[in-house]
Amino acid sequence: MVLPPLLLCCCLQSWALSQQLALSVHLALKAAAQKYGGMIDHFGFDQDVTFQQRYLVADQHWRKDNGSILFYTGNEGDITWFCNNTGFMWDVAEELNAMLIFAEHRYYGESLPFGNKSYSDSKHLNYLTSEQALADFAILIQHLKETIPGALSAPVVAIGGSYGGMLAAWFRMKYPHVVVGALAASAPIWQFEDLVPCGTFYTIVTNDFKKSGQCCSESILNSWGAINRVSSTDEGLKWLSSAFHLCSPLKSKQDVAVLKAWLSETWVNLAMVNYPYKADFLQPLPAWPIQVVCKFLKNPKLPDKLLLQNVFQAANVYYNYSGAASCLNTSQSATRNLGLMGWYYQACTEMVMPMCTDGVNDMFEPRKWNFHAFSEECFKLWKVKPRPSWIASVYGGKNISSHSNIIFSNGGLDPWSGGGVTRNITDSLTAIVIPEGAHHLDLRASNPGDPKSVLQARALEVQHMKQWIEKYRHKH
Amino acid sequence: MVLPPLLLCCCLQSWALSQQLALSVHLALKAAAQKYGGMIDHFGFDQDVTFQQRYLVADQHWRKDNGSILFYTGNEGDITWFCNNTGFMWDVAEELNAMLIFAEHRYYGESLPFGNKSYSDSKHLNYLTSEQALADFAILIQHLKETIPGALSAPVVAIGGSYGGMLAAWFRMKYPHVVVGALAASAPIWQFEDLVPCGTFYTIVTNDFKKSGQCCSESILNSWGAINRVSSTDEGLKWLSSAFHLCSPLKSKQDVAVLKAWLSETWVNLAMVNYPYKADFLQPLPAWPIQVVCKFLKNPKLPDKLLLQNVFQAANVYYNYSGAASCLNTSQSATRNLGLMGWYYQACTEMVMPMCTDGVNDMFEPRKWNFHAFSEECFKLWKVKPRPSWIASVYGGKNISSHSNIIFSNGGLDPWSGGGVTRNITDSLTAIVIPEGAHHLDLRASNPGDPKSVLQARALEVQHMKQWIEKYRHKH
Repeated sequence: MVLPPLLLCCCLQSWALSQQLALSVHLALKAAAQKYGGMIDHFGFDQDVTFQQRYLVADQHWRKDNGSILFYTGNEGDITWFCNNTGFMWDVAEELNAMLIFAEHRYYGESLPFGNKSYSDSKHLNYLTSEQALADFAILIQHLKETIPGALSAPVVAIGGSYGGMLAAWFRMKYPHVVVGALAASAPIWQFEDLVPCGTFYTIVTNDFKKSGQCCSESILNSWGAINRVSSTDEGLKWLSSAFHLCSPLKSKQDVAVLKAWLSETWVNLAMVNYPYKADFLQPLPAWPIQVVCKFLKNPKLPDKLLLQNVFQAANVYYNYSGAASCLNTSQSATRNLGLMGWYYQACTEMVMPMCTDGVNDMFEPRKWNFHAFSEECFKLWKVKPRPSWIASVYGGKNISSHSNIIFSNGGLDPWSGGGVTRNITDSLTAIVIPEGAHHLDLRASNPGDPKSVLQARALEVQHMKQWIEKYRHKH
Repeated sequence: MVLPPLLLCCCLQSWALSQQLALSVHLALKAAAQKYGGMIDHFGFDQDVTFQQRYLVADQHWRKDNGSILFYTGNEGDITWFCNNTGFMWDVAEELNAMLIFAEHRYYGESLPFGNKSYSDSKHLNYLTSEQALADFAILIQHLKETIPGALSAPVVAIGGSYGGMLAAWFRMKYPHVVVGALAASAPIWQFEDLVPCGTFYTIVTNDFKKSGQCCSESILNSWGAINRVSSTDEGLKWLSSAFHLCSPLKSKQDVAVLKAWLSETWVNLAMVNYPYKADFLQPLPAWPIQVVCKFLKNPKLPDKLLLQNVFQAANVYYNYSGAASCLNTSQSATRNLGLMGWYYQACTEMVMPMCTDGVNDMFEPRKWNFHAFSEECFKLWKVKPRPSWIASVYGGKNISSHSNIIFSNGGLDPWSGGGVTRNITDSLTAIVIPEGAHHLDLRASNPGDPKSVLQARALEVQHMKQWIEKYRHKH
């Protein structure tokens, strides 16, 4: 794979997508979908055209006289999914007399600036940037304040997870006049340039497996060599295809590379969704899924085929816990929808996140970060050149101490925490670490299986939000 | 005139241009001109092209070990002119061990993104925005820090006047990781939408004339009616052309409208450059030029022709103090160069500054702010539609209290002070008012004729800058 970081972002995405289908029945039903015509290009005047941005409103607990607005800064996917997977906002709405708004990110879901031509070429994709998305949010909030009775003077808090968390933090940094503060959950705002070592992400994934079962990470580490050896013959390719119950049998070295990338993605996905309770995804996962996975990976010294049979069992926990899948599809998560394409494009322009592995500090095949190759691949795909230093230039990199009212929450188990803010920067740029948390566990709905640390995190988050709101009310 | 605010911006511009020619011999010689290849479009990836941005460097007082950088955020004109007319920076360079940088604003001077095609149509003009200019500044500073020995850890202070002052303030708001603070001199950041009454600007102009001579403003107020009456006959048109020594005789009602606009512009220009000492402009002006002008305007009750002869004498102070001009050209300041065209375009897109007069609180013919007509005129000229609420949306309007380290200095005599910040907002968003000051007097070089108030203002400004620098050093 020439594009390692895309792979990771895929993971993030494919995971999001798998959840989407399963949970979209829940909360979005309680939220009303609306659309607003915003400018396609906020930063230029030649293209004076608008597009329909979708947003969801839930005002069951909204109080006109004394209410607040919790605004989800939508990320790379259909907004109904984020609406359904951010139970935290629903859980605190009453306490904060809050109206919930979930704003869809341009170029995702139904918010396509040029309809089905939006992804047709680099000209149509030109307005898919974080800066345009933040401007969308600012203008949308202004519109809501002007049209919803009582909203004009209501304090707005930005909330987001993952890329949405980055957007929430950046939104407060760039538009502090629009939001009184931001909760940026699992937001890897430092996963750029050399702000953090490129190996951190995969090291954390590896540590999750180390902690979840004896010799678990060693088994995975050894599996790559086993795959390489077994796949070196035609007979071995056949055997592998069968052992992994693959829908399309492996036929070439390239197919084997895809298999390995798909397995890596699986381990990464598991690290992100390593939640402490049974979670109802497309394929439901057990509580602490990595522990379940690791039960199959206790013996790294087994002969190749035996080891790989165990690796299949382990991967099967993620892909086929319910037992319903008749075969596994290694290309499944990498192609299916616009949301994924959008993130690929963003990774090839602004969101350049250097990633690397060394097989020593992590359980993956060594792979250096190669910007040149990455850039060439991006140009082939999209006819654009990534600008790796832009995000730090525009959002400040590590020099963000003059901003205020941002909570950076991170799960200790979440590989993205490596690029996140995990220490307080100032009194009002605070970090909350949830040791037992995976990817933005705190944004999920309250669950009897929640560890104490996430309950404390959520309580602290609410406390901060109340302080921002109170301070705002005091001033107005 | 359908475009009142453009008129004013012209004034600002024509004044700038007139100074440019006279003073460009001074300081620019001591500054080295350089160019940097920056992105034409920071906010999109389809147009992956760079342009040469000019900047001037003066490092006579720069100290590698302990220096600071004073960065002029160039506005709508040739940067050498701003370099020459910001003597304040030269005066304080030694005290702050400072390197001076004067960055040219894109689309002005020699920094034309598409060479002589830059102004050819709305497609080529698409990248002329304040946001792109701020990003230019951020990237340029990054480049300088990476290439000038000792600069990497040097604190940078943004300084600008007028539109450049707005840019300095906005630069600190949007890129606080790049500059430790900003001196925004005579920056009318609130001259947008309904943030201030549309009549404030002309009321201040009028007050300057009221204060400078008995019946002075009444004389000007009465002059409009006199012009209307006299110009109603062909003989009167001839008389007027001769009385005003016009290069092109008046032939139509339209010409008379231009004459009146040109006179209004003259009074506005005088209000902006009403400096307390003789200043060496293209046409040199005496100290307190409005007082000199008002000596001709003591009797508003004179018969029309006598009044208008006095008005000519008064205008002649501005246009022909040296006595060298053989005739006066009413179209002189409104056409000549790209700088002016650039500001027209900016006023027709982002920089929509509502202006109005009523002939009661001011000495001008009543004219309401008519956005619709303005917008139509803009579309005719540039094929663009102005977005009057965008500046407040993106830069916060009056809600800027969460920012820090900005000094807003304003001259009490400066009509632009009406749209400026003239009261402290917080401890670190401070306002300095210079009662005897016209348009950014504080940025001009020290002069024996300086009133005490501007000396105090400059001292306070340096004190703030030193605090920002010290605090930055303390942290690093």
